[in-house]
Amino acid sequence: MDIAIIGAGALGGFYGSRLHAAGHRVHLLARSDAAAGHMAGFACRSPLGDVTIPGDRVYSHSADLPPCDLVIVSLKTVDNHRLKELLPACLADTGVVLVLQNGLGVEEEAAAVVGGERVYGGLCFLCANKVAPAQVEHLAYGKVSLGRHGINGQAMGIDEPLRRIGQAFMDGGIAVSLTEDLTAARWQKLVWNIPYNGLCTVLDCDTQVLTTHSDTRMLVDELMQEVVQGAAACGKTISAKFVQEMVHNTDAMGPYLPSMLLDRRAGRAMEIEHMFGNPLRSAMVGGTILPRIDCLYRQLRFINSRS
Amino acid sequence: MDIAIIGAGALGGFYGSRLHAAGHRVHLLARSDAAAGHMAGFACRSPLGDVTIPGDRVYSHSADLPPCDLVIVSLKTVDNHRLKELLPACLADTGVVLVLQNGLGVEEEAAAVVGGERVYGGLCFLCANKVAPAQVEHLAYGKVSLGRHGINGQAMGIDEPLRRIGQAFMDGGIAVSLTEDLTAARWQKLVWNIPYNGLCTVLDCDTQVLTTHSDTRMLVDELMQEVVQGAAACGKTISAKFVQEMVHNTDAMGPYLPSMLLDRRAGRAMEIEHMFGNPLRSAMVGGTILPRIDCLYRQLRFINSRS
Repeated sequence: MDIAIIGAGALGGFYGSRLHAAGHRVHLLARSDAAAGHMAGFACRSPLGDVTIPGDRVYSHSADLPPCDLVIVSLKTVDNHRLKELLPACLADTGVVLVLQNGLGVEEEAAAVVGGERVYGGLCFLCANKVAPAQVEHLAYGKVSLGRHGINGQAMGIDEPLRRIGQAFMDGGIAVSLTEDLTAARWQKLVWNIPYNGLCTVLDCDTQVLTTHSDTRMLVDELMQEVVQGAAACGKTISAKFVQEMVHNTDAMGPYLPSMLLDRRAGRAMEIEHMFGNPLRSAMVGGTILPRIDCLYRQLRFINSRS
Repeated sequence: MDIAIIGAGALGGFYGSRLHAAGHRVHLLARSDAAAGHMAGFACRSPLGDVTIPGDRVYSHSADLPPCDLVIVSLKTVDNHRLKELLPACLADTGVVLVLQNGLGVEEEAAAVVGGERVYGGLCFLCANKVAPAQVEHLAYGKVSLGRHGINGQAMGIDEPLRRIGQAFMDGGIAVSLTEDLTAARWQKLVWNIPYNGLCTVLDCDTQVLTTHSDTRMLVDELMQEVVQGAAACGKTISAKFVQEMVHNTDAMGPYLPSMLLDRRAGRAMEIEHMFGNPLRSAMVGGTILPRIDCLYRQLRFINSRS
C-alpha cells in the first residue's frame, strides 16, 4: 500500500515507521520537521527495532504526495481545519482515511471532506516522544484500537477495509484490537483523558501527584463518573470494571505528564475542543449536563487563551 | 465598652481603630505585629481619619486582656481552633462575641466555646491592607452587615445587644445594616466569594481578567447559580437581582486580587473550609450537590496542601 501520514509528530512518526518496517510505501507529510527529514530521513528508535523512513518520502506539501490507499491523520486536532486542503490532495479514489486522534468528533471532520463511508478511526495507547527534528523515541506501549466511523456515533461493526488496516499495523509489530463500536471506544478513552489531562493541566502537576492527594483522587473519580454518564447519554455503556482498571493502571504507571500539560508548558495550543467540548456537547444533546467537566473545560479554555 | 479585637490583621486593625475613634477602650490581640504595636501603637490610615491605638492596648497574650463587653473575632478562620483558649480569657461574664469572618459556620465555632446566645456575626465589605507591622491602610468601603447567630441557621431577628454593637460601629463612622437573618446574609456574600476567590486563586489572575474572558465569565455565572441552589437547600432565598448586582459591581470595581489569591501567592494557609467546605456540606444536608463548587473545592485543597 501507499500510505500517507498527515502530521509527523511522535505518534505519526512512530506508526509510520512501523508501517514502513512492514513493507508499505510510507509518505510522511511534515511541517517543522520537513527540512531535517528530507536531509537525513525520519528516524524512529524503538524496542521493536530502529527504522528510518528515507528522506525522499518526507514531504512538506501535500500536493507532492502520490495518491494513497490509506491516509492516516495524526495532526493535532487544533489543525483539523487543514484537512479540507490536505486530504483531497493525497487520497486515492479508492483510498480510505484512518483518524488517529484523541477525543470525540474527529472522524466527523475527515468525513465532512471525503465522505463518511471511507473514514475509520483509532485510539492509540502509546508512549513516544519527539527527541529532535525528524527523530522519535518510542518508549513503551503502542497498541491501537481500530473501528469504522458511523454517523451519529452508531456502531458499524467490522468490515474488510478495517481488517486490512489492522493487518498492516500487525505486520509492523503493533498489537491491534478491532472494535465494532468506535464511538464507545472513544468514550472509554475519555475516562482517562478527561480527568488526567484536565486536572494535570489546570493544576500543573503529574498524574502521580494527582492520584496520591485525596482531594484530587476523589475529583478524578467524580470526573470519571461524569464521563460514564456522558457516554450513557449517547447510548454507550462503560462498565465500572473498566473505570477501576483505568485508576489501577494509572497508579501503576508512576509519574506521567499528559500531553495537554506538555502543550501548556511549551506554550502550544491545547486540544480542548475534541477532548472536552465535543463530549460536553454530545452529552447535552442526550439531555445530560456534566458540570465538573464543564468547569474544567472553561478553566482550560481560559488557560489556553492566556498562553 | 471594653472591646477586644482577636486578630490584628487589616480587618481587625481597621474596625478596632474606628471603635477606638468612637471612644471605646479597644484592646488588640496581635501575634506577629505585637512587638511593633507595643512600641509605637497600632496605626490605621484612613479617609475617615488617621487613628493610632496606643501601644499599651496591644497585647500578645489573651490572658493580659481585661474582661471585655464585646469580643470581636477577626482571626483568619484557619486559626479558629485557638478560640477555645482565647475567648474565655477575655470575655466578660455579660459580654458578647461578634464574629467578623467570611464563609459559613464561623459563628458555630465561637458558640461552641461560649454558648450560642452570646454570639453575633457580621459581614464586612472592606478594602484595606496591612502595609507594615501594626500599620493598616484603609482604601475604600468598610460597611458591615450585622446579625444574630441562630442554631441551624435560623433567622433570629434583631435584639438589643445587636443594636448596641451596630451603634458602636456607627459612632466610629462605619455604615451599618442590621440583618434579621445572618445565615441568609452569609449565603449572599458567598455569591461573590465562591466564584471570585475560587477561580482567581485556581487560575492565578485578578477579577477583571476573569470577567473579561467569556469562558470564565460563564463559569462565574454557573457558580453563582450553584450558590443560589445551595442557599435554597438551606431554606434561604437569593434573588436574581442580587446576583446581577454582584456581577455589575465586580465589573465596575476594576482589577482586584481576592484575599485567597493573596494567601496563595504569599504561601499562607487558604480559608477553604468555611468558604467552600461548609457551604457544600450544608447544601448536601439539604439534599443538594453543588458539583462545580465541589470541583473548585478539591482543586483549592490540592493547591493549599502543595504550597
